Amino acid sequence: MITFCDIGNTSYHFLQDNYDFKEFVDIFDPASFKEEVFYICVNPLVKDKLNVLTNWIDLSSFINMDDYYETMGVDRIVASMAVKEAVIVDAGSAITVDVVKDSKFQGGFIYVGIKAMHQAYINISTALDYEFNFECDLDRLPKNSKDAISYGYLKLFQREVLSYDMPIILTGGDADKLKNIFIDATVDKNLIFKGMKKVYLTSRNF
Amino acid sequence: MITFCDIGNTSYHFLQDNYDFKEFVDIFDPASFKEEVFYICVNPLVKDKLNVLTNWIDLSSFINMDDYYETMGVDRIVASMAVKEAVIVDAGSAITVDVVKDSKFQGGFIYVGIKAMHQAYINISTALDYEFNFECDLDRLPKNSKDAISYGYLKLFQREVLSYDMPIILTGGDADKLKNIFIDATVDKNLIFKGMKKVYLTSRNF
Repeated sequence: MITFCDIGNTSYHFLQDNYDFKEFVDIFDPASFKEEVFYICVNPLVKDKLNVLTNWIDLSSFINMDDYYETMGVDRIVASMAVKEAVIVDAGSAITVDVVKDSKFQGGFIYVGIKAMHQAYINISTALDYEFNFECDLDRLPKNSKDAISYGYLKLFQREVLSYDMPIILTGGDADKLKNIFIDATVDKNLIFKGMKKVYLTSRNF
Repeated sequence: MITFCDIGNTSYHFLQDNYDFKEFVDIFDPASFKEEVFYICVNPLVKDKLNVLTNWIDLSSFINMDDYYETMGVDRIVASMAVKEAVIVDAGSAITVDVVKDSKFQGGFIYVGIKAMHQAYINISTALDYEFNFECDLDRLPKNSKDAISYGYLKLFQREVLSYDMPIILTGGDADKLKNIFIDATVDKNLIFKGMKKVYLTSRNF
């Protein structure tokens, strides 16, 4: 059994065979995990911890970076490697959107995740403290505060992503929520692991 | 000489004849202002202070609210009253977008302002601490982090607002910055005062 781990800003996401589970970055001690684990990590603090643990093997060293850019999050790269033709929407603390055509990365952008965006509205004014309404009618301009905020966050994002007119794959912790505004999208919570397995197989040839 | 004042989440914006100036909400004491002043205010804390000052006259009581909605910020209402046919983009701590057709409010949405959005990215991860690039090429998908974040914030907003295919009026403290992404827009920093003058004239008939 091979263990994979995708580490983000808030959690360790493990996959062992077809079983996946999460541990919080704030409380999980990676040194407590004794088995061999192949990981990718975008969290600078966690990276430092893992560097000294020999059973934690960083898959990013086996990736050909030529098609991507230097500061691109390795999670985005690995997810992009898992598809041939798609818009990948990875909804975590940040939402990353990456376009892949003919197995080649075309570019992408970074939006603010659901929780962080809700907090951003609150930080402006307590008068803007509304949970997003994922069932808001995005086909008409809102005439109430909750929908005015929901539209501001969701419609702009929906309009951009739909404009590519490509198959959409939703992944990450908030994939199911975004399914409400991308009804034709596929949800694949293990997309990054598919890419990681690809990289792992490549690494065997090194 | 009549004094008008538009009070937002961060500042008092005064207009006396054609001279306008700002005072910070955190430090300005409205009781120190002894002249008669006609104001609108979206800041709940400031509202409480002004209620007890008899020389501060709330213009919102003279507005016919039927065309708007209950929790709509009075600044948005007043700005909407100042135009016949336009998309009004008021860029302050929040960015409000309101559509007016044939002098009638059609609806609108609330987006996060530039400073608050920058902070939202930082709160997710220090790896996302980039100032927005207002000269980012929004016609292609980014391949670097600074533009990936700038695009995520600016392109989505630009695409939405341009989709209305209407004249755009930019107002508020960050109007000039947004002019970079709405090159055909008109900047009118005193738009709200135009609406306030209209309400003021109505109030004379009460």
